[in-house]
Amino acid sequence: MKLYDTPLAPNPRRVRWFMAEKGIDDIEVVTLNIMKGEHKTSDYLAKFGLANVPALELDDGTMITESVAICRYLESRYPEPNLFGRTPEEIAVIEMWTRRAEMLVATPLMLGVRHTHPALAALEQQNPAVGEYNRETGMKALKVLDRQLGEHEWLAGDRLTIADILGFVGLDFGRLIKLAPPPELENVCRWHKAMAARPAARAGMPAVAPAA
Amino acid sequence: MKLYDTPLAPNPRRVRWFMAEKGIDDIEVVTLNIMKGEHKTSDYLAKFGLANVPALELDDGTMITESVAICRYLESRYPEPNLFGRTPEEIAVIEMWTRRAEMLVATPLMLGVRHTHPALAALEQQNPAVGEYNRETGMKALKVLDRQLGEHEWLAGDRLTIADILGFVGLDFGRLIKLAPPPELENVCRWHKAMAARPAARAGMPAVAPAA
Repeated sequence: MKLYDTPLAPNPRRVRWFMAEKGIDDIEVVTLNIMKGEHKTSDYLAKFGLANVPALELDDGTMITESVAICRYLESRYPEPNLFGRTPEEIAVIEMWTRRAEMLVATPLMLGVRHTHPALAALEQQNPAVGEYNRETGMKALKVLDRQLGEHEWLAGDRLTIADILGFVGLDFGRLIKLAPPPELENVCRWHKAMAARPAARAGMPAVAPAA
Repeated sequence: MKLYDTPLAPNPRRVRWFMAEKGIDDIEVVTLNIMKGEHKTSDYLAKFGLANVPALELDDGTMITESVAICRYLESRYPEPNLFGRTPEEIAVIEMWTRRAEMLVATPLMLGVRHTHPALAALEQQNPAVGEYNRETGMKALKVLDRQLGEHEWLAGDRLTIADILGFVGLDFGRLIKLAPPPELENVCRWHKAMAARPAARAGMPAVAPAA
């Protein structure tokens, strides 16, 4: 099994975080420099169909992109600690919160960064109106997380799950455009601090955060 | 178990389609009129936290929103025909294609419609630049599906899965702004025709398509 990874981008970080929570350290990791286009070589495209990172190459030749699909596969191979749920009911609630964290917060903030940050102009045909809309939409949706985190310690209930990883990594990527959880969202701030303090928060991250 | 549904919107249609493929007909369905705000009552919001449809209320009191979470739960209760995969490898490939169909095509086209269609102005603070960007992005990404459908009969391989449902429903929602698969994408057109011909395509849909 071989994982294709790249630093700084948010989706690969989800997988590194997930692996760190599980203590997975026996998978070969290939680090790509996406600013140099190492994810756009003909070899890479032939394998995965798209220039997507992260990507997982299985020993049987199966190729998987998409961070959540990769994490769910890793959960089948490394079941503990459980991060996707055990019963059908728990799996459904965790998937609901994973999707809410991703679609309401993480994806909009990621688009907010990609369409407005000068350093990403080389990777993206930027559209500032799209960036602005997504930045606002993502920040507004933090209220949904705040309500949930007022009733539960973690997004999907009483333990950390894949939902928290997606939510935090998305929000933390927003730091590139100087976003931070607003102080009035006290529950989000409490959770944000708890997430940032986990050893997994530093998995594969540069020692010094990039300047915004 | 009680399903909250609404006609015309694309996310509830995914669940109805999924249920029709499985022949599920023993779940109580409550049809909401979202133009009248029936998904925004205090009762509904207290149950599901958000004004989201579809939503599933389980007998044990668990409340699930998010179409894919609902479908995955239904798969656990009604396993055949299998639409999410059986082995971890197959589950991963199906999830990869489900996410590609959703994030590259269905979500952008849905945003394209929501931000530009006059009939939806009452539901949405429309941003035409965001609508235009998403419409273009979603249509461009059909090429990714076309390449895959040139090698496989269905999006995730040799049988219909949840990935096909998300892809088709997203594309079909685009009809509201007169979008259709471009003829030069022959594989998408072949697949589109096969999907449209399935009995599940008409599950819970009005007899006459709404005028664009």
